Amino acid sequence: MEAEFIAWAKRRVSKLPAPELGIGDDAAVIGCRSHGDATRLVLTTDALGDGTHFKLSEHSPKRIGRKAAAVNLSDIAAMGARATHLLVSLTLPREASSGLAKEIFEGICEMAEHFQVSIAGGDTNCWDGPLNICVTAIGEVPANDLWRRSGARPGDLAVVTGPLGGSILGKHLDFLPRLDLAEKLTGKGLIHAATDVSDGLALDLHHLGTDSRAGVVIDLEKVPISDAAKLLAQNTGKTPLQHALGDGEDFELLLAIPPQNVSELQSLGLWETFFVVGEFTPRTGLWSKIGQKLQQLPPIGYSHG
Amino acid sequence: MEAEFIAWAKRRVSKLPAPELGIGDDAAVIGCRSHGDATRLVLTTDALGDGTHFKLSEHSPKRIGRKAAAVNLSDIAAMGARATHLLVSLTLPREASSGLAKEIFEGICEMAEHFQVSIAGGDTNCWDGPLNICVTAIGEVPANDLWRRSGARPGDLAVVTGPLGGSILGKHLDFLPRLDLAEKLTGKGLIHAATDVSDGLALDLHHLGTDSRAGVVIDLEKVPISDAAKLLAQNTGKTPLQHALGDGEDFELLLAIPPQNVSELQSLGLWETFFVVGEFTPRTGLWSKIGQKLQQLPPIGYSHG
Repeated sequence: MEAEFIAWAKRRVSKLPAPELGIGDDAAVIGCRSHGDATRLVLTTDALGDGTHFKLSEHSPKRIGRKAAAVNLSDIAAMGARATHLLVSLTLPREASSGLAKEIFEGICEMAEHFQVSIAGGDTNCWDGPLNICVTAIGEVPANDLWRRSGARPGDLAVVTGPLGGSILGKHLDFLPRLDLAEKLTGKGLIHAATDVSDGLALDLHHLGTDSRAGVVIDLEKVPISDAAKLLAQNTGKTPLQHALGDGEDFELLLAIPPQNVSELQSLGLWETFFVVGEFTPRTGLWSKIGQKLQQLPPIGYSHG
Repeated sequence: MEAEFIAWAKRRVSKLPAPELGIGDDAAVIGCRSHGDATRLVLTTDALGDGTHFKLSEHSPKRIGRKAAAVNLSDIAAMGARATHLLVSLTLPREASSGLAKEIFEGICEMAEHFQVSIAGGDTNCWDGPLNICVTAIGEVPANDLWRRSGARPGDLAVVTGPLGGSILGKHLDFLPRLDLAEKLTGKGLIHAATDVSDGLALDLHHLGTDSRAGVVIDLEKVPISDAAKLLAQNTGKTPLQHALGDGEDFELLLAIPPQNVSELQSLGLWETFFVVGEFTPRTGLWSKIGQKLQQLPPIGYSHG
């Protein structure tokens, strides 16, 4: 349902005043009146619900709060921005104690503390429903180095910032959003396009390619496979590679980098943190490569709703 | 639970980087780096849940969406700001159709259209729980005329922008946030303090007084009573005045105005839109007045959670 609704919503909001960058990227981009031309604000909001994004019966409230902050901060990182503020809206089960609310909030605060972000405001309600946490994150980015999803060009390398797959075993709660890396890269003009791996490498790469009107070839021998993917594969009947390609919520950055920028990234000491997983091509579609053998790849991953 | 949790949260976030104005007012205030000194951004987020703020079984999805936008825009108006952007996070029951999502979104869009605000982004999820709508609103305000809750001074008149009470009969869904009035008043330095009447006149005035370290006297003979309050009183055993004092969700503005600014407001043609309901005093506490008789008034109204 979500894809069709989002396509409809994009058309619907086109009749309204337009932000600089609206629905469809990792975060929205707005200018501010009488703001210097040099900086833009990025804004993102994500609601996490019990049973969908976490399980209150299994996971500690602090880890849950941490995740609610981190998924939003990951979207800020995926724009190449520096995070500055969070807003937190808690909808708590009526029977919840104030201790539960505090533990969730403490998890959010720890993440805010780590990245020196303010918690500027929020809202708390109780209701006859499960726990829902909606966080809004705000960040700042140089206007001339916004990382959109649509900027990849044929020939760009597709790189990720860490091994993938099996995040359900714990990383989806405990990952650290890649804000530190984004801050090191921002303003340097080295990145053509970016997103974070939230729906799965294949699907997120497919989105990056589609938005950039380019094709993508994934080199299956180069996809970094996490230990969690290997562990998970022992019980799922899938291969570790399938987990690395299709699992969601790894929250690594997925970047399009022109090959001529590699040497500068090397001299900055940042290239070694990257894994090249493929490249963007003029021929559209999503493709896999083993050796020289090319095959069309279905965009496996997490489809919402 | 909410009051105690918020007090705790305020203390907790004091260890984090501070926004210009944080938890506790109608909206947060932030500067932006390399932003002109003249403008500030205001940010607010409110989640509305089925069964608490609306009833999906009774109210049309469009009215529900409209309300979700309007309550947030009302907070922007209560800061004296101009609204610029909305972010929308929908958490839908799993069995919900895309038709339902579109109708809710359409209600939000109509409100955005009315005030020429963008819908810059958002998020959609399905879950095994009731409908929850979290909206974040962003606005801009002149830095030298921010309407905080803490600015009222003894001698200021307490005024509201419309008759109160009985909003449960429909106004809580169909009210128009007072952004037009805020836009006419903003930047003129005429308002000492403001909030919107969301928890009930007595309680919201009490908050304004407490935050401003002033007392408040409500002139019970002057409180404007809505037709809805009179209608509701026929069945509740309360008086219409009790409804006007204690009912929440009227979303009128509640302002502290120094008497010397009345003539300028008159010449702007704005004074006639106001109802004087009392005044701020050096003696703290919330008081009611009938004729010359003063009595302590309990801060009746809606206590969250």
